[in-house]
Amino acid sequence: MFTVCVRDHVMIAHSFRGEVFGPAQRLHGATYVVDAEFRRRQLDADGVVVDIGAAHALLKDVLGDLNFRNLDEEEAFAGRNTTTEFLAYAIWTRLADHVRSGALGAGGDGLCGLKVTLHESHVAWASFEADLPR
Amino acid sequence: MFTVCVRDHVMIAHSFRGEVFGPAQRLHGATYVVDAEFRRRQLDADGVVVDIGAAHALLKDVLGDLNFRNLDEEEAFAGRNTTTEFLAYAIWTRLADHVRSGALGAGGDGLCGLKVTLHESHVAWASFEADLPR
Amino acid sequence: MFTVCVRDHVMIAHSFRGEVFGPAQRLHGATYVVDAEFRRRQLDADGVVVDIGAAHALLKDVLGDLNFRNLDEEEAFAGRNTTTEFLAYAIWTRLADHVRSGALGAGGDGLCGLKVTLHESHVAWASFEADLPR
Amino acid sequence: MFTVCVRDHVMIAHSFRGEVFGPAQRLHGATYVVDAEFRRRQLDADGVVVDIGAAHALLKDVLGDLNFRNLDEEEAFAGRNTTTEFLAYAIWTRLADHVRSGALGAGGDGLCGLKVTLHESHVAWASFEADLPR
Amino acid sequence: MFTVCVRDHVMIAHSFRGEVFGPAQRLHGATYVVDAEFRRRQLDADGVVVDIGAAHALLKDVLGDLNFRNLDEEEAFAGRNTTTEFLAYAIWTRLADHVRSGALGAGGDGLCGLKVTLHESHVAWASFEADLPR
Amino acid sequence: MFTVCVRDHVMIAHSFRGEVFGPAQRLHGATYVVDAEFRRRQLDADGVVVDIGAAHALLKDVLGDLNFRNLDEEEAFAGRNTTTEFLAYAIWTRLADHVRSGALGAGGDGLCGLKVTLHESHVAWASFEADLPR
Repeated sequence: MFTVCVRDHVMIAHSFRGEVFGPAQRLHGATYVVDAEFRRRQLDADGVVVDIGAAHALLKDVLGDLNFRNLDEEEAFAGRNTTTEFLAYAIWTRLADHVRSGALGAGGDGLCGLKVTLHESHVAWASFEADLPR
Repeated sequence: MFTVCVRDHVMIAHSFRGEVFGPAQRLHGATYVVDAEFRRRQLDADGVVVDIGAAHALLKDVLGDLNFRNLDEEEAFAGRNTTTEFLAYAIWTRLADHVRSGALGAGGDGLCGLKVTLHESHVAWASFEADLPR
Repeated sequence: MFTVCVRDHVMIAHSFRGEVFGPAQRLHGATYVVDAEFRRRQLDADGVVVDIGAAHALLKDVLGDLNFRNLDEEEAFAGRNTTTEFLAYAIWTRLADHVRSGALGAGGDGLCGLKVTLHESHVAWASFEADLPR
Repeated sequence: MFTVCVRDHVMIAHSFRGEVFGPAQRLHGATYVVDAEFRRRQLDADGVVVDIGAAHALLKDVLGDLNFRNLDEEEAFAGRNTTTEFLAYAIWTRLADHVRSGALGAGGDGLCGLKVTLHESHVAWASFEADLPR
Repeated sequence: MFTVCVRDHVMIAHSFRGEVFGPAQRLHGATYVVDAEFRRRQLDADGVVVDIGAAHALLKDVLGDLNFRNLDEEEAFAGRNTTTEFLAYAIWTRLADHVRSGALGAGGDGLCGLKVTLHESHVAWASFEADLPR
Repeated sequence: MFTVCVRDHVMIAHSFRGEVFGPAQRLHGATYVVDAEFRRRQLDADGVVVDIGAAHALLKDVLGDLNFRNLDEEEAFAGRNTTTEFLAYAIWTRLADHVRSGALGAGGDGLCGLKVTLHESHVAWASFEADLPR
């Protein structure tokens, strides 16, 4: 299996509901350093998993919708705790939708898997990984 | 698959038996920066894989039994080479036992996998990964 | 010159005032991975710059006053942009006050310099450094 | 599953053919920080996945054939774009051949998987992973 | 002293002249992960050392003149070994010229120092640092 | 000022004397990832601060005298706590002696400063820095 990973980041505010979160129930924020890993069984004719420039641009585009925002006010996340693992899934879904819509060109059709990892500090990270439907 | 990872570290002394280890047969030591990755197929009602505070506390607790010790004198490791990969397994087993015993609360029941990685330097690490029995 | 550095982190929300900040004028947030470097010309009788356990505890204590908070609502920062560099200075000041007040014990008297660095992402950090008055 | 990983690096020049590569069609170069992960289901009698000294030596040996070279002039890569993901595969193949030939000693027989990751910058990496035939 | 640092990277080919360089006399290449640190004694009215967006853009602009190139063919470097430390100086000079020319706006006038660090691998880096003339 | 830094590591056992060390009074150990920074005001005729291959070899040589050892049994450290900061100084002294003795060739004469940093974990490091006498 081949994998290509690109990295970018996003800075957001949010709060959590539920006693399990302790002081994180207060409005606070995070920098997420985000890794998007694209998987492919065979390289394409150019010898790549994905056009890495297009992959960087797609990740920046998807993160741009979240960047410098208070996620508590985003309709898409109403009633949800925007935990690191939840956001990994949310970003995964958006990336997968764009891949399906052709954002990575014809090469995107060959992708078979996607993993999104959010590093929230030097001591914690979370990820979501799943196959991409063909 | 969702994953949440927490990081901590432990500082130990030990020696190895076997010519393959060369100078590492002498008493020496290591800092292991330890990553514990908890896996879950679905997020729980709070939107998490695991209570991250409880995960950090559990890892610190398990590492506390090894920290600042000479592993050559630990009964639990008698007759074993406490290599990085062996210790990854030993820490995995202890974490898994605690998860089964409820150290992560009811949420621990939903965990389906665990990976433990020990970084021994900037040029070497080892890990053990296995499913967690339900 | 001897230096000992300890690392911890803090997660906050805030917004900036001023057109130069562009979208960062909106409420957003950050994880700051914080390095506190303590400097001493000579080691003390125990062979240390500072009791590293006490240094870790002091840094956690100072960051605890900021952690999981919206800095826009902190009286101490009223009318100020809590930029990364400003916060490096704010944390420096608080650490220096505690050192002067004996938080690091008698050993703190020998410290001659302090540097505080805040890593806001994988592509940006800021710091404040100054001598500590004897 | 047990994994042991060793890290080294290689510095090469190359160019790419294909409009998708934009300015990378010009002769340029890269440092690849290379991780080789060796997998084994059970530890051997010494308690290791692989003799880590032998693993470091093998990786250095394989990278030595590429180091400080212009890959455009390497016969082995004639007509191929030596992208990061392609090189991960090329290095994987060479490592696997050496393992099969006994470069890691008898212990190499127990290896069941190999992953090679090339970090090309702080914001991009690529890997190839596959089982090792017994 | 306040410092703000921004990070980017550049991928180049080159060769060295002189027996001291051994195999690096052959055409090869490198990824340089580049840190540019801007220093200021006091924060400006906005509470910053420098507009961090402008600093990122300036660094990208300066690196753009080198990126995806064979430095052996650059007139600016004719007759010079483009070692990591030499390139740190070359990039320092270009950044300093741009600061003087107003690329960072009026705020650039307050800068008093600049450091440029090039990370060439996980085991080596080089830097050049000097005061900025007012 | 120009700086070139090379990185290596060492794995040792030791114990500390003094109540301030708490559980670290027990025999334990550490991996130290060691950075040696060599400073020079002007580049030499080859365009370097130091022959980087020679610098790597010198650092490995100096660390080789400590590697895989119990520092409590080293005569050179009798009666001393081999803290991270003390070891930074000890390694500094040995590197400086070798530079003075010509281990880096004639080029070593131009060096004006040296800094040694020991990373003991992902949350702590220590260093010693001083000018090199001409």
